[in-house]
Amino acid sequence: MSLLAVGTVAFDAIETPFGKTDKIVGGAATYICLSASYFTDKINMLSVVGDDFPKETISLFHNKKIRTDGLQIKTGEKSFFWSGKYHADMNSRDTLTTDLNVLASFDPVIPESYQDCQYLMLGNLMPQVQQQVMKRLRKRPQLIVLDTMNFWMDTTWNELLETLSMIDVLTINDSEARQLTKEHSLVKAAKKIFAMGPKFLVIKKGEHGALLFNRSEVFFAPALPLEDVFDPTGAGDTFAGGFIGYLAQTGDISFENMKRALIYGSAMASFCVEKFGTERLVNLSQKELTDRVKEFERLVRFNINSN
Amino acid sequence: MSLLAVGTVAFDAIETPFGKTDKIVGGAATYICLSASYFTDKINMLSVVGDDFPKETISLFHNKKIRTDGLQIKTGEKSFFWSGKYHADMNSRDTLTTDLNVLASFDPVIPESYQDCQYLMLGNLMPQVQQQVMKRLRKRPQLIVLDTMNFWMDTTWNELLETLSMIDVLTINDSEARQLTKEHSLVKAAKKIFAMGPKFLVIKKGEHGALLFNRSEVFFAPALPLEDVFDPTGAGDTFAGGFIGYLAQTGDISFENMKRALIYGSAMASFCVEKFGTERLVNLSQKELTDRVKEFERLVRFNINSN
Repeated sequence: MSLLAVGTVAFDAIETPFGKTDKIVGGAATYICLSASYFTDKINMLSVVGDDFPKETISLFHNKKIRTDGLQIKTGEKSFFWSGKYHADMNSRDTLTTDLNVLASFDPVIPESYQDCQYLMLGNLMPQVQQQVMKRLRKRPQLIVLDTMNFWMDTTWNELLETLSMIDVLTINDSEARQLTKEHSLVKAAKKIFAMGPKFLVIKKGEHGALLFNRSEVFFAPALPLEDVFDPTGAGDTFAGGFIGYLAQTGDISFENMKRALIYGSAMASFCVEKFGTERLVNLSQKELTDRVKEFERLVRFNINSN
Repeated sequence: MSLLAVGTVAFDAIETPFGKTDKIVGGAATYICLSASYFTDKINMLSVVGDDFPKETISLFHNKKIRTDGLQIKTGEKSFFWSGKYHADMNSRDTLTTDLNVLASFDPVIPESYQDCQYLMLGNLMPQVQQQVMKRLRKRPQLIVLDTMNFWMDTTWNELLETLSMIDVLTINDSEARQLTKEHSLVKAAKKIFAMGPKFLVIKKGEHGALLFNRSEVFFAPALPLEDVFDPTGAGDTFAGGFIGYLAQTGDISFENMKRALIYGSAMASFCVEKFGTERLVNLSQKELTDRVKEFERLVRFNINSN
């Protein structure tokens, strides 16, 4: 089933306790699409870049069967740029630069060839743009997943709430779920979020795993304890890409299948953080992915009745 | 198999965002023994209190088949007292009062009837006292589990390291594992801790669950997402009591069985935090425990191959 992924395609400059990069390719849609490409080859990317964006990366997208008909390239303009520095614990970071550039006037035009998409992943972006995409699709996709962040809660609260009322699955991190609902308990936060519109909620807890809620059930996917985490940039988007990519591949949006999707998303994210930027996501083998998923199974498997 | 549990038996005064208690019964050995009592009836408590300690609580211990031959009662002295206040997130707290009282001169005399213990739980205490207990046992128990905290790393580093070299299982929280090893990665921290002596490591992460390591494997037990957490006091000790209680009940210290023990410990801890102090641990039914463990199973169960 075809997947439409909306989000930034951009440059990042990253500093972690392990090293520093110059401008490298990043952006939510980049991570989402690369991650999803391990599950399905019907991926439509919707984004905007300047003419400074490398042709080789666009070729790479094509090699990964990611369609870029909806990737606008603005002549004479610059791509979105973000730079940040992670603290020693890798769980928090300071933003050093945010140059919106082409993103400031992003008008998400949907190519005709994208109109039939059944799975829609709205990566972190201005809620107004996420909403426009939904309004411009003639047929509502079977599943709409949205990722957002605290910044939009601080700056565009009403637009965000309006947007949330239109989606199926919200992915958000734990502190943001608390900010959005003013509830410390994630169980209570989930209830309040369901009242806002979404039918499913994924709470991302970074090194502590992820929770999936529907109105009556909860599932927990652990994070794999890793020897080294080099760069958390893009881990959340990679997770989302694996999650929706697996759902699009299987065409099954039952809660049971979403559990598997959560594990695949977590496995993809565990690869992402092993290297800087998208490096680890570009050359992953199917066997590495299968083996990694088995590690997740071993990590939480217990048999309470075997003695 | 008989279990010897060493630790404080004390008074606590607790303030959380949900309320405040006067002096109530607490202490590591109290929580450990009450929790373990749901698994085995051969529990020997080793501790010290003043004559201000309520007789009814000692009767309660006896009702729970907890032997108190090794609970010294010091006439004219006062029991250990701690008071603390939890922050809004319930993950951090300030200590308001620590009155050592009888604990200042605690000499852990082991009754003859305790000498045959096969499972030893050394609750959080001065490392020197934990060490004395091991030295005063004529026969080394089959399994020695030790819990400690950052305070002893700050004040009695050498004694702590010496004590760690004598044990089998260390239980510690994540920030303490990092402090003990100066490693942020818990995988690297585990390796350094194994070099200090322990063969197994349990890293407690509170609302984020717990990890069990041996030299070659890792297992993760989730925490149950709870609607309300009223009071985290004693959760770590309750966890430890369930863990070693289950091992003592089954007499099996394989890694596979330790996984189950970790789940039972987590289940007991999930009850503990639902009420103030030991309230929830006193009147738990076997069915409630079995049902809770099933919730843990459901929380992490997935079948990667079912579609």
